[in-house]
Amino acid sequence: MSEILKRDKLIKQWIKEAAESIESAKVDSLKVEEKSARNDLVTNMDKKIEEELSRKIRAEFPEDRICGEEGYGDDLKDLKGTVWFVDPIDGTLNFVLQQENFAVMIGVYEEGIGVQGYIYDVVKDNLYSAIKGQGIFCNDQQMKAPKNKSLSEGLIATNSQLMTQDKYSDYRKIADQSMGVRMLGSAGLEVIELLKGNVIAYMASKLSPWDIAAGKVMVEEVGFKVSQFDGSSIDLLNKNKTIFSTGKAFDEIVTVNSK
Amino acid sequence: MSEILKRDKLIKQWIKEAAESIESAKVDSLKVEEKSARNDLVTNMDKKIEEELSRKIRAEFPEDRICGEEGYGDDLKDLKGTVWFVDPIDGTLNFVLQQENFAVMIGVYEEGIGVQGYIYDVVKDNLYSAIKGQGIFCNDQQMKAPKNKSLSEGLIATNSQLMTQDKYSDYRKIADQSMGVRMLGSAGLEVIELLKGNVIAYMASKLSPWDIAAGKVMVEEVGFKVSQFDGSSIDLLNKNKTIFSTGKAFDEIVTVNSK
Repeated sequence: MSEILKRDKLIKQWIKEAAESIESAKVDSLKVEEKSARNDLVTNMDKKIEEELSRKIRAEFPEDRICGEEGYGDDLKDLKGTVWFVDPIDGTLNFVLQQENFAVMIGVYEEGIGVQGYIYDVVKDNLYSAIKGQGIFCNDQQMKAPKNKSLSEGLIATNSQLMTQDKYSDYRKIADQSMGVRMLGSAGLEVIELLKGNVIAYMASKLSPWDIAAGKVMVEEVGFKVSQFDGSSIDLLNKNKTIFSTGKAFDEIVTVNSK
Repeated sequence: MSEILKRDKLIKQWIKEAAESIESAKVDSLKVEEKSARNDLVTNMDKKIEEELSRKIRAEFPEDRICGEEGYGDDLKDLKGTVWFVDPIDGTLNFVLQQENFAVMIGVYEEGIGVQGYIYDVVKDNLYSAIKGQGIFCNDQQMKAPKNKSLSEGLIATNSQLMTQDKYSDYRKIADQSMGVRMLGSAGLEVIELLKGNVIAYMASKLSPWDIAAGKVMVEEVGFKVSQFDGSSIDLLNKNKTIFSTGKAFDEIVTVNSK
């Protein structure tokens, strides 16, 4: 536990330092590049933050390994030991186009089990965190666990592709059974909406390990579900079609999916 | 002009008074009813706020007419004279399910021309306003006009039905030409996203006059466009399939639509 508490203190400090770098950057000086598609962006700031976080992690915890979005981590073939999942800027498109609605995320896993999750809404200055077994927190204040609502009782969050691409038409039917769709464009902040009870699920057609790791710890901490679309376990070495959900909505979504 | 300034002062005061009523209400004491569908809700608070606003308008401006969502207004057959469009709680579903992401809206039209628009994000305590010809403001600070970006350069906001219902598949294709979709679930707050430059358009498959009136004044004030999906003028006596958009994106969206 003392290792976890040491990490907890450092992660909170490092995330705030990262946010200061991000907020002090002038938007006009950002260098923006396309990755896999015209709306899959990376900036020099994403790279800088991941490089800095990785350097700090390696200095304090030289035995640990890192899985990061921008290439400063290790090439992982397994989840043995302690693994840090780092997303320097989750919601880069929002960061570039809106200068808000993005997050810094860190998840820490021991032997494949999530033990710590951190999602920092930089512009709103809200740091959401969880240590396994200790509840969920916003700025060190314990949050009330959200209600276990069914699909028809709440709103559902999705990524854009799930709503616009023909191959995902089944998921539009799921969305139609909910009260309505909401989209923020940041996996981390959609998970926060679930934890606040603002939505009953978040479904995304392709999430990477660093998009999932922190949120998975927090969502499981309140007894909710995280899995691939077909109900199988999340694979933190690959991309996943991912559902984060209340228990009740999860059973309904996975049932629809497997028809 | 003195009439406009008198209204401006009173509207700002009345909106803040409405917000105090809303914020002091206990969620558990809300009486929620379904209107046209299971996700078209009204609460006793929507009714109370509209009743109060209507009473204040009639006391100060007895010659004017009111178009309101909850039935405390007049039965309008034309837009002669001065007409007040009142939406006591825009985003009632968010109000009930999230206790955030809703707005109080008032628009004032003279002989069918929008002269004043007010959108109050209650929880964030941001009052956005415009008087025709004087620019757009947030909490009395002038806002920078957003850039005139094209469809492919920005994010697009839509309502849920446009993304989930088969009959709107053409609009999913429009959305696919943008950088991605965002959905907040409040027509007023989506318009604010457009005014902040966070999205390049907001499309909704069915908006009522009180959903449109305030935002139309503000969007036209920055030189952007508001129309029905087919490019025809907004009809403030009926429901409209509505586009609020930058000039560039508007030309692209209406072209796609008319194919």
